[in-house]
Amino acid sequence: MTFEEKTLSREVVYEGRILNLIKEEVMTVSGQPAIREMIEHNGGVGLVAITSDNKIIMVKQFRKALERDMLEIPAGKLEKGEDPLEAAARELEEETGYKAENIEFMTRYYPSVGYIRECLYLYLCTGLSKGEAHPDDDEAIDTYMYTMEELEKLIAEGNLQDGKSMAALYAAKLRLCSAK
Amino acid sequence: MTFEEKTLSREVVYEGRILNLIKEEVMTVSGQPAIREMIEHNGGVGLVAITSDNKIIMVKQFRKALERDMLEIPAGKLEKGEDPLEAAARELEEETGYKAENIEFMTRYYPSVGYIRECLYLYLCTGLSKGEAHPDDDEAIDTYMYTMEELEKLIAEGNLQDGKSMAALYAAKLRLCSAK
Repeated sequence: MTFEEKTLSREVVYEGRILNLIKEEVMTVSGQPAIREMIEHNGGVGLVAITSDNKIIMVKQFRKALERDMLEIPAGKLEKGEDPLEAAARELEEETGYKAENIEFMTRYYPSVGYIRECLYLYLCTGLSKGEAHPDDDEAIDTYMYTMEELEKLIAEGNLQDGKSMAALYAAKLRLCSAK
Repeated sequence: MTFEEKTLSREVVYEGRILNLIKEEVMTVSGQPAIREMIEHNGGVGLVAITSDNKIIMVKQFRKALERDMLEIPAGKLEKGEDPLEAAARELEEETGYKAENIEFMTRYYPSVGYIRECLYLYLCTGLSKGEAHPDDDEAIDTYMYTMEELEKLIAEGNLQDGKSMAALYAAKLRLCSAK
């Protein structure tokens, strides 16, 4: 069965710095009108960066939306029209100071399909060499090293709660397992 | 190091049906003012429901935010103050028609930490018995059965792109592996 919801009317409620808020009246599949509130966002990139001794680089930063620190993979927003691969290289260096010889696209995914029009591109970075981190002016970031097993223990115990890190580590694990 | 961003001013830009949009001026760790646009949302539940013959129940529905069908685990929004466990039982039955004898909490996570104040609670449902699906009036949902291996192949190939499904299947896999 193919479903579709026709847009009856569309209102841009808010145009902001990183997101827009859209409100649409739609006709549902069952033939009833419904309101859909949706967020437009340029999307971003997330990186699983693995060192030569099999450590994965994680970053910790304060997240205002949650009012707490979060342990996450390196990641960043896409500028409008920016090539995700270039953004991946940039964010890895900005947030961690590392450069990667190999940056492989793994997959892309949607963090919250119910109301967010945002796509995240996930990359696997290897062949790393250390330089100097230089985060954006409004970012303050610490880096940490973990093995995959340690990160999976954190996920299983509920101590790694960042969605993009869970999605990206899963994709990396599946990729690394199938390469063996 | 502990980071924190102090709120200098807060504006509720929009109060909606499923989300609110908040705009805050903050003082960053480095001592500069910055704007944070954030979405408040009640959060939700996501379910990995496994039948006695080791099939995982997936649903497909049209997602207006993406203008396409998405293959997803059963899931749903929390009503304000609702117990996530009750929401999990309700959504499983509404979307798939199945009832679960066992609903175990796995973990909770944040789908998009940069700007969404939303938490998703993930459950593992077993001991399933089939009844009748009865989705909400504005939902139209098809159900499908997959093995974990089939779903992992879809993820690895980039054909399962729903963030909560990736996070929940990973959590379920880690849980089921450690139980062996």
